[in-house]
Amino acid sequence: MNNGGRLIGVGVGPGDPGLVTLNAIAALKEADVVAHFAKAGNASNARTIAAAHLTNGVEELALLYPVTTEIPKVDAAYRDAICGFYDEAANAIAARLDRGRVVAVIAEGDPLFYGSYMHLHVRLCSRYPTEIVAGVTGMSGCWSAIGTPIAQGDDVFTVLPGTLSEYELERRLADTDAAVVMKIGRHLAKVRRALDRAGRLDRAIYVERGTMTNAAMMPLVDKLDTFAPYFAMVLVPGWEGRP
Amino acid sequence: MNNGGRLIGVGVGPGDPGLVTLNAIAALKEADVVAHFAKAGNASNARTIAAAHLTNGVEELALLYPVTTEIPKVDAAYRDAICGFYDEAANAIAARLDRGRVVAVIAEGDPLFYGSYMHLHVRLCSRYPTEIVAGVTGMSGCWSAIGTPIAQGDDVFTVLPGTLSEYELERRLADTDAAVVMKIGRHLAKVRRALDRAGRLDRAIYVERGTMTNAAMMPLVDKLDTFAPYFAMVLVPGWEGRP
Repeated sequence: MNNGGRLIGVGVGPGDPGLVTLNAIAALKEADVVAHFAKAGNASNARTIAAAHLTNGVEELALLYPVTTEIPKVDAAYRDAICGFYDEAANAIAARLDRGRVVAVIAEGDPLFYGSYMHLHVRLCSRYPTEIVAGVTGMSGCWSAIGTPIAQGDDVFTVLPGTLSEYELERRLADTDAAVVMKIGRHLAKVRRALDRAGRLDRAIYVERGTMTNAAMMPLVDKLDTFAPYFAMVLVPGWEGRP
Repeated sequence: MNNGGRLIGVGVGPGDPGLVTLNAIAALKEADVVAHFAKAGNASNARTIAAAHLTNGVEELALLYPVTTEIPKVDAAYRDAICGFYDEAANAIAARLDRGRVVAVIAEGDPLFYGSYMHLHVRLCSRYPTEIVAGVTGMSGCWSAIGTPIAQGDDVFTVLPGTLSEYELERRLADTDAAVVMKIGRHLAKVRRALDRAGRLDRAIYVERGTMTNAAMMPLVDKLDTFAPYFAMVLVPGWEGRP
C-alpha cells in the first residue's frame, strides 16, 4: 500500500538560518511539497529561515490561519474555526501524500514542542509514514544569544506560558530552580509582578527575537515599559548553587 | 587587547550526526583547537557526533574527567576533585586563547542546558570573547524519535532529574502537564513508583539513546526490568486536552 507518500515534520530552529540542521536541509532537498503556516498577509517565519534550501520547482503550500481576532478564545466558535482550519490543512497535505509525494512541513524551533505542526501530526501520523527532524528550540536560541547557562546538575527546569494566572505563575516560579516564561505579549506586567512576589525578579532576563538580527535583551528590572511582542520570553536562570 | 582568541561553546545535538547545525559546522571549520569532555578510556560522544567536521591538523584537547567513583558525591573531596578538574580544563583552554587561538568546545545537545561546557563558560566568558552555538537537546531528540508531541498551547512543561526524592518526583509529576525525567539510571524503580502515585504512569514512555542507531523505546509499563543507562529518559507527554 505504500506509494512513497511520506510526511516529514522539519524543525528549522529559532530564527538564525545557521541553526538549521543537516537533516532539515536533506528533508527540504528531498521534499516534493514544502508546507508552512503563516498569518494571512504575513510571510511564514519558518519559510524565511529555510528559504536558502528550497529547491527550484518545489510545490509550496501556504497554510494560512483564519482571521479569528474578533472571536473570544474561550468561545466555541473560535475552537471550531481553528479545528476546521487544521482539518482542512491536514486534508490538503493528505491529498498530496495520497499521490505519493514527500511533504515537508517546516516549523520554527522544534516541531513537537509547542508548535502548530503538532496539529497536523496528530491528524496524519497514523495514516502515513511520518518522520520528525528535531530542531533547536526558540528558548535554546534565547539563552544562547545572551550566553546564560539556564540549568545544571539536579536543577528542576520549568516552561510556563505567560497566559497562566498571576497566582499560578508566582507559585510555580517560587518552586523551580530555572524557568522560561513564554508568550509574554500583553502578560508582561503580570509576569513581572509574579516574579517579584516569587523572589525571582532580580534574576529574570527579558529576551525579544533571541536569534534574529534585531534581537533585544535586558535584565527584566531594567525594562521600564510593559510592551512586549507575543514571542518574547523571560528567562530565569537556575544553577544558583554553582561552585 | 583582543588578540583574536575566542571561545565558542558548540552544541552538536543529541547523537545523530545529521542533527548538527550549519553554525556548528562553521565553528568547527574555523577552530584552531577543538576541546571535548570524556571519561578516561572512553571516546567523547560529542567528538563522535562531530567527527566528520574536524579539519586536518586541528589541535584536539581531550578533557578527561578524574576517576571519582570511589568518593561519595556528598563528600567535599568529590567536589574538590571536580572543581579542580574544571579549573585545570579552563586553564588549558585559557592558555590557547591567550595565544590568539579560536577554541571550540563541543558539547552534546545544547551547551547551556545541563552540560559540562557550562563549567568552562562561567570560568572564561568574562575574560575572553565568547559565543554559543545552540544545539538540539537530547530531550528533543527523544520525543522526535518516538514521534510524540510533548507540549502544546498553555501546557506547563517540567524537566526533572531522576535524582530527586520519590516524594518530590511524585509531587511535581502530579502538578505539570508534560514532563521529562532525565538521568534515569539506577533511579528507574523510584521514578516508576512516583509516576504511578502521581497517576501518570500510563502516559510515560521510556527512551534510551533516542537518536542513536541502537535506540530503544517503549511504554514504561511494558519495561519489566529496572535496568537503565544513566542517560535514559522518561517522557510524559502533555496536550491531554487536544481537540
